[in-house]
Amino acid sequence: MSETCLLVLDDEPLPRLDRLAGRARVVHVDEKRLADQLPHADVLLVWDFLSDAVRDAWPGEGPRPRWVHTPSAGVDRLLPELADGRGTVITNARGIFDRPIAEYVLGLVLAMAKDFRGTWELQRQRRWRHRETFRLSGTRATVVGSGPIGREIGRSLMALGVKVDLVGRTPRNSDAEFGRVHGTGAMRTLLGQADWVICVAPLTEESKGMFDAGTFALMKPEAHFLNVGRGQHVVEDDLVDALLRHRIKGAALDVFGEEPLPADSGLWDVPGLLISPHMSGDTVGWRDDLSEQFLDNFDRWEAGEPLLNVVDTELGYVPTKPESPAP
Amino acid sequence: MSETCLLVLDDEPLPRLDRLAGRARVVHVDEKRLADQLPHADVLLVWDFLSDAVRDAWPGEGPRPRWVHTPSAGVDRLLPELADGRGTVITNARGIFDRPIAEYVLGLVLAMAKDFRGTWELQRQRRWRHRETFRLSGTRATVVGSGPIGREIGRSLMALGVKVDLVGRTPRNSDAEFGRVHGTGAMRTLLGQADWVICVAPLTEESKGMFDAGTFALMKPEAHFLNVGRGQHVVEDDLVDALLRHRIKGAALDVFGEEPLPADSGLWDVPGLLISPHMSGDTVGWRDDLSEQFLDNFDRWEAGEPLLNVVDTELGYVPTKPESPAP
Repeated sequence: MSETCLLVLDDEPLPRLDRLAGRARVVHVDEKRLADQLPHADVLLVWDFLSDAVRDAWPGEGPRPRWVHTPSAGVDRLLPELADGRGTVITNARGIFDRPIAEYVLGLVLAMAKDFRGTWELQRQRRWRHRETFRLSGTRATVVGSGPIGREIGRSLMALGVKVDLVGRTPRNSDAEFGRVHGTGAMRTLLGQADWVICVAPLTEESKGMFDAGTFALMKPEAHFLNVGRGQHVVEDDLVDALLRHRIKGAALDVFGEEPLPADSGLWDVPGLLISPHMSGDTVGWRDDLSEQFLDNFDRWEAGEPLLNVVDTELGYVPTKPESPAP
Repeated sequence: MSETCLLVLDDEPLPRLDRLAGRARVVHVDEKRLADQLPHADVLLVWDFLSDAVRDAWPGEGPRPRWVHTPSAGVDRLLPELADGRGTVITNARGIFDRPIAEYVLGLVLAMAKDFRGTWELQRQRRWRHRETFRLSGTRATVVGSGPIGREIGRSLMALGVKVDLVGRTPRNSDAEFGRVHGTGAMRTLLGQADWVICVAPLTEESKGMFDAGTFALMKPEAHFLNVGRGQHVVEDDLVDALLRHRIKGAALDVFGEEPLPADSGLWDVPGLLISPHMSGDTVGWRDDLSEQFLDNFDRWEAGEPLLNVVDTELGYVPTKPESPAP
C-alpha cells in the first residue's frame, strides 16, 4: 500500500501525531490553502472542527479524500456538501463527549434547581439571604436527542431520581434503559410535562429552529431549557422573548447561532439565561482522547478494516449500529 | 392519658399543627419566655432549631419535658445540657435532609469541576473564553460522616463514577454499598488521595475544629473541600490560609462559625471560596415534611409506642438502628 497522504486542517498543534511517522505523509494546512491541497489527499482530518472551510473548499467533480474524520460529535459543518454520493466516508468522535457533556448538563440542572448563580451574586454583595431551593429528585426531563450523548445525559438524570423521556428520530416501543424512545410527534405532550427540556439533537434540516416560540409556548412556566446541541436548533429571539415574558423559568445555552457570541449580543444579560462558550464536552485531556480515537481508526484504515463511527450522511449522524464497511 | 402540653419554640408559623386540635394544649413561646414555660411542658418542639435558647434555659433539677424534638439533623445546639441523665428523650429530623443535601453537594462538586462561577463571571463581562474543565467521573472523594446524609452523598457521587471513601466514628470492614467504612484514623491516608473532601459529620467534642491547618496540609493542591456539617468543624482562618497559599484548589461552605455570616466577614471574598447561607437541605416543602415527621412521632408518643429517630446523647446523633424504646 503506497504511503497515505493525510491532510490536517488545524489552527493548533495536534498531540500524538508522531505515531504516524513513516506511515503517512502529513500535510498541515490552514483554511486558505485547503482547496489547493484537498485533491491530493487520501485522508482529511478536520482538527479545526469549528471551521466551515471544508464545506466551502470541497471539490466538485475532482479527486478528493476517501476518508474525512471530524473530531466532533456533530457533522453539520460538513453536510450536505460532502454527501455527494461519490463515496467519501465521514467518521466522527462518537463516544468521547458522552460523559463530559452528561456531567455538564447535570451540573447545570442542579445549579438551576439550587440557584447557585443567585447565591454567588449575593456572595459578591456580601448578603446572607436564605432561600428555599428545588428538589431534583421526582422532577421530569425531556431529552431531545437519543444518541449516545442524550442517553448518557438521561442515565445521569435517572440516577438522581429524575423521570426521563427520550425523544429521537426513530421511535422505539421498548428500550432496556428508558422504557421507550419517543418520536418527535410526542414532543407536544412531553413538553407540557417536563421540568427540564434538554436539546442534544444532531443538527439536520428537520431539527433546525425546532425550539421556537411555538415550542416554548408548550412548556410549563416552571420549566428550564438547556441547549448543548447546536445554536441553530434554537430561534434565539424566541427564547429571549419566552424568558422575558416568563413563559419559562430559565435557560442555559452552551451553543449559539454565531460563535464566538459577539460582545454586543443581547443574550449576555437576559435574566434567567446562563451562557457558556461551547465547552460542555471539553474536559482536560480531550484533545489526547480525540487524537487517540483518530489514530485507532487510522490503524483500521491502513489494515483495510471497517472504520468505526461512520456517519450516515443521509441521517446526519452515526446510527446505532457502530460499524460500517470499509471504504 | 391527660392532655399533653406541647411547648413550641418558634419564630414563624408552623404548618399542619391543627392536626393536634383536641389532643394537645399547644403553647407557643419565644426565646425570652422559654425558661418560664419549660417546667410545665410534656413535649418541646424546637421549631426554631437554629436557636441556642433551649440549652440556656434548660432547668437544672426541676421538672422538664420528657421529649424534645428538633427538626434538624444536628443536635449540637441541645447538647450536652439536655443529656443530664434524667431521661429526657431527644429526637431529630433524620431522613428529611438526605436527598436535598446530597443533591446540593453534588451540584457544588459539578459546579467546581466545570467552573460555573468563572463562566458566569465571564458572562457578566460579556467575554467568550473557552476553557477546559474537569471530568468528575474517575475522581475520588472522601466523605467524612457516615450517617444517612453522608451515605446519600456517597451514593450520588458513586452513581456518577466517583470512587467514594466513607469515614465514620465506627469503622466497619464490610459495607454493602461502600465496601467499608473507614475510621478517623484512616483520614491521613485518605486526605492525600481525595479530589473532594466533604464534611457532613455530626458536631461533637471530637469533631470540633477537625479541619484545621494540619488537615488541609494533608490534602492535594488540586483538591476541593466542602462543608455542609457545622461551621465549628472548620478552623476558618486555616481554610482561608490554605486557599490563599494554594495548598488546596477551592472550597464551598454552607455553614459557618457565626451565622448569619456578618457582612464584614473576610470570608465573602476569598478567592476560590463559594459561600451559601446554610440552605443545602432546604428545598420547597421542607417545613411541611418536618412538621409531618414530628406529627407522626407525636402519634407514637400518644399511643405509647417507641419514638423514631431517638438521639444517642452520648454519641450526639441517631445511631444506625433507627428505633429506641419509648420514654
